[in-house]
Amino acid sequence: MSCAVGHHPSAREKTMDDLSPQIANQTPHRDRPPAYGQVTTGPIEGSHKIWSSPPDRSDIRVPFREIPLDPSANEPPVRVYDTSGPYTDPTVQIDVEHGLPSVRSSWLAKRGFSQVADVRAVKPEDNGFAGEKQLVASCPAPHEVLSGGKAKLVTQYEFARAGIITEEMIYVAHRENLGRAEMVEGAQARRADGEDFGAEIPAFITPEFVRSEIAAGRAIIPANINHPELEPVIIGRNFLVKINANIGNSAVTSSAAEEVEKLVWSIRWGADTVMDLSTGRNIHNIRDWILRNSPVPIGTVPLYQALEKVGGVAEKLTWGIFRDTLIEQAEQGVDYFTIHAGVRLQHVPLTAHRTTGIVSRGGSIMAAWCLHHHRESFLYEHFEEICDIMRTYDISFSLGDGLRPGSIADANDAAQFAELETLGELTKVAWAKGCQVMIEGPGHVPMHKIKINMTKQLSECGEAPFYTLGPLTTDIAPGYDHITSGIGAAMIGWYGCAMLCYVTPKEHLGLPDRSDVKVGVITYKIAAHAADLAKGHPAAQIRDDAISRARFEFRWQDQFNLALDPDTARSFHDETLPKEAHKTAHFCSMCGPKFCSMKISHDIRRDAERQSGMEQMKEAFRDGGNKLYVPEVEMRTKEKI
Amino acid sequence: MSCAVGHHPSAREKTMDDLSPQIANQTPHRDRPPAYGQVTTGPIEGSHKIWSSPPDRSDIRVPFREIPLDPSANEPPVRVYDTSGPYTDPTVQIDVEHGLPSVRSSWLAKRGFSQVADVRAVKPEDNGFAGEKQLVASCPAPHEVLSGGKAKLVTQYEFARAGIITEEMIYVAHRENLGRAEMVEGAQARRADGEDFGAEIPAFITPEFVRSEIAAGRAIIPANINHPELEPVIIGRNFLVKINANIGNSAVTSSAAEEVEKLVWSIRWGADTVMDLSTGRNIHNIRDWILRNSPVPIGTVPLYQALEKVGGVAEKLTWGIFRDTLIEQAEQGVDYFTIHAGVRLQHVPLTAHRTTGIVSRGGSIMAAWCLHHHRESFLYEHFEEICDIMRTYDISFSLGDGLRPGSIADANDAAQFAELETLGELTKVAWAKGCQVMIEGPGHVPMHKIKINMTKQLSECGEAPFYTLGPLTTDIAPGYDHITSGIGAAMIGWYGCAMLCYVTPKEHLGLPDRSDVKVGVITYKIAAHAADLAKGHPAAQIRDDAISRARFEFRWQDQFNLALDPDTARSFHDETLPKEAHKTAHFCSMCGPKFCSMKISHDIRRDAERQSGMEQMKEAFRDGGNKLYVPEVEMRTKEKI
Repeated sequence: MSCAVGHHPSAREKTMDDLSPQIANQTPHRDRPPAYGQVTTGPIEGSHKIWSSPPDRSDIRVPFREIPLDPSANEPPVRVYDTSGPYTDPTVQIDVEHGLPSVRSSWLAKRGFSQVADVRAVKPEDNGFAGEKQLVASCPAPHEVLSGGKAKLVTQYEFARAGIITEEMIYVAHRENLGRAEMVEGAQARRADGEDFGAEIPAFITPEFVRSEIAAGRAIIPANINHPELEPVIIGRNFLVKINANIGNSAVTSSAAEEVEKLVWSIRWGADTVMDLSTGRNIHNIRDWILRNSPVPIGTVPLYQALEKVGGVAEKLTWGIFRDTLIEQAEQGVDYFTIHAGVRLQHVPLTAHRTTGIVSRGGSIMAAWCLHHHRESFLYEHFEEICDIMRTYDISFSLGDGLRPGSIADANDAAQFAELETLGELTKVAWAKGCQVMIEGPGHVPMHKIKINMTKQLSECGEAPFYTLGPLTTDIAPGYDHITSGIGAAMIGWYGCAMLCYVTPKEHLGLPDRSDVKVGVITYKIAAHAADLAKGHPAAQIRDDAISRARFEFRWQDQFNLALDPDTARSFHDETLPKEAHKTAHFCSMCGPKFCSMKISHDIRRDAERQSGMEQMKEAFRDGGNKLYVPEVEMRTKEKI
Repeated sequence: MSCAVGHHPSAREKTMDDLSPQIANQTPHRDRPPAYGQVTTGPIEGSHKIWSSPPDRSDIRVPFREIPLDPSANEPPVRVYDTSGPYTDPTVQIDVEHGLPSVRSSWLAKRGFSQVADVRAVKPEDNGFAGEKQLVASCPAPHEVLSGGKAKLVTQYEFARAGIITEEMIYVAHRENLGRAEMVEGAQARRADGEDFGAEIPAFITPEFVRSEIAAGRAIIPANINHPELEPVIIGRNFLVKINANIGNSAVTSSAAEEVEKLVWSIRWGADTVMDLSTGRNIHNIRDWILRNSPVPIGTVPLYQALEKVGGVAEKLTWGIFRDTLIEQAEQGVDYFTIHAGVRLQHVPLTAHRTTGIVSRGGSIMAAWCLHHHRESFLYEHFEEICDIMRTYDISFSLGDGLRPGSIADANDAAQFAELETLGELTKVAWAKGCQVMIEGPGHVPMHKIKINMTKQLSECGEAPFYTLGPLTTDIAPGYDHITSGIGAAMIGWYGCAMLCYVTPKEHLGLPDRSDVKVGVITYKIAAHAADLAKGHPAAQIRDDAISRARFEFRWQDQFNLALDPDTARSFHDETLPKEAHKTAHFCSMCGPKFCSMKISHDIRRDAERQSGMEQMKEAFRDGGNKLYVPEVEMRTKEKI
């Protein structure tokens, strides 16, 4: 059975108008985990899901979240980008056993892809030889496997190069515009105000602009043709900065829903893509559950699973095992693969005198293999075959930075930059093969060495999107590495990095829990948004302005609801001023009711407007002509100093 | 009675050698508050306090914290800057009723200051007319009040201009060098590696360099002659970046120790200065408790107390009340005053069309006063008299940015920059009067507008030190504003800002608790340290390198102990791997014991060294001459692409 018809047709027929705020604003969902076998659903407090279609394309329904404001504001709702998928839509019946409704099947159906008859059978090693009692059941959601092998055009890159605008391109254009029908007021001025370091973000994103960026290799839409549930997202420096969250399986899984919940929780708070870095048992089956229930692109590191299949012994890896793992994951629908093909034999000795050696897991696996066999990396040698496989399903490359620095001391060293140069070489091979490509980046880098990373990546890799881990700007704060890295992430996002891989407070110390994941995602949403503002993204400041007006006008509920994390904002406020009445009070806990800075500003505005019109008053002040305002004591002059 | 003799003489006679690690490494102090009437004492876990004297000056004892490493490391202890005062020295008997030992009395005794006979008597309004039951008792610690009125030279600025090196200057030079006797190895190279935007941090700080920086107005040592308990600290862009924490009284104070604990807790984690922003009742007496127990400079906003004295009604403020408040706080020993003299009548209308008006409390008080009276600000008009008072006690100016932007929309606007220009004018007046000066800065500023703030401040204010609140790089994350602002703080610190005022997670929402204060301080320590690294401070990377080596060598305890917050690092690790044995394990919870990236790097290093010497191997790889390493499959060439 195919997903193509959508197994929740009722949900797909709903329109914006069906969603009254009453329905949408149901139960608040705080940080508590969901019940056994369930995932977190329902809208983020103080907002509701809407679906919006580009002009003349009612078949394309793009999700947003709308935050209605207090009637006293006399402002329209604030619309924000929404990565949370159907989980926050109360009209969609969520059942992880059924998977999500299909978004792309009808689009894919027209592209001449063939249904794979001999789908690769699941082998015991795919699930780490999990015994009967340990085995997580496979996901019963229907999944048809497609191959683009016989089609002339398969990947978004190929379509873009051929001058064809796909539905995915129309979708992301509408999404990037936040559903605006046309250029937002003041957008040109806003752009002029930013500093974009050579990026060229237009005031309004058209599908044709999306196509041209993909054709130029400057952007990608990671979208495996076997992931029809995907809500497409574009990654490139002329678009909103994106963030990735990593998840991984637990040693003891009590239910498949528990694993899906990690995905759902990450995207609820804003993860644009999710990497499944699972190891050990059940990784094939858990990946199936994740993909069938994921509205965001899923990335993996196939090398991790390949290593499991050879018992964790790097030197036992073979091209055959790796190739088989690529097919396995490709048919499941993984949207992008981290491929560490830049770790070449000749680069390994460059790491010998490093302070922290090779810290990338993929990088060290490949280094171990190369050293053991005294051979060039099989990923490098078979790179063109890897391209052929990835092109067949439109899996995007995320060329791994296996030699990224693991300490401030190792930043921007010969090993790191030698690998980056190789990644540039491989980017061009992948493009020639029709594939979409992004490039992974560091790591640990002090602030003054961040920009050169971005500049060198753009020049070496032909402006392919950059996707960095942080970077961490100091090594000395384990327990706070979401912050050490959030600083670097904001900066490199500003300089042109397209996607920021989150770091949680547990980095270097342990495995993140539910709360760590949320803190990591919110920190990276801050970094990405700060970058969008600094680049002068035409729509970025809309939300800042709305929350600032709410703050100035003591609309507390609006301030909470417009926050990246409304639940935390509300609960922090309530710790000091718990009464409901305080949420409409014209003061806060900082100055208290007796004296309020904001109140004085309101008085200034009112007085000024009442007296003689603000403009005249400003003139009067400017030329000093108004006798009333001349101080009695002689004004200090510079001559006296 | 005078503090000059030191009321804990035993503590002052101890030397480094007296402090065995056994004594120092006593009870760990986690985040729990101390018992009633007590403050937090004892060393930070895994480290101990040392005192070190500059060459030939055994009368000057500068505190540091030393972190001993595992014997397997074969490395000396790592010495770090220490703001925590005697509280972390287990040999010092702490009793808040006695106050801290005197550090500066013998130095001050030689400077010809006179003892004030008619010390200003405490008035009921000084404590907000607190009734008998509400009144916090005054601090019984002895305190002699000095005046420099009749001395030729009083302020550090005056001594510096006269070519005289004070004990405070010798103290901070030794402190900035982390007690190094001479230039640290590789320091020149390190400096060359950084980007300092025109700062000129020498490889080794001499007392003469300190003097010359103070004489140039580029640095200050906030040190009221009535604060002998002070451990001097220097603030300037050619020194380590400093951070400030704000504290304030509680509405209901159960004990004076509870108020002192806020100070002790802030400096324990690294606050270089503390501002007491108390309002309401008991502020005079609480300030006394704080000053007698503070080893760090204390800053205040005298306008806050003056406003309390007139019942919170801004227009009732008078120069007389304000002046009396300056004298009151000066005699207590406050080290720096925020003076909002840059909010001039003519600037107020520039704020009328702002998104968030005037958000500074001091700024709005002054704006309200100016508008009500249609008069120039009394702070501006009486600025020279203010200088005379502040010079008499060597209180440093922190010229307040009353018109700082409270939102991204208002950043770098006409009001903000008009005030900054006035602050530049006032800086020169204060210097002419012999005072030390720093300048307060914003606020809410998007990343691309931060640098112009720094550049303009340097040029308008003659390179006087800049002291900023963040800046917050977006408005949309209440609950996480330590992070939105930590990003901006790191950047402006890199660009040249001398001190960063912390922001806690409760900013905009409520009053910070113990945990918020710690998170705020650690976040700002990260920002300041990231800035020091990026500027190329010669000693900054020592700690990063040490923790990275510990990480690479699986010295878990060293990694925790070298962290900015050892308690959190340790507890995060223990959540996943609680057993003691795991702290010596050569793996972590990320990859698990079966496969470890770090282990492979060790193998690479060992193999490489064993085979034929790393250097030859590198050569072999470089010229491709070693047949062993030529891949069997023909290597990909660029021509094929």
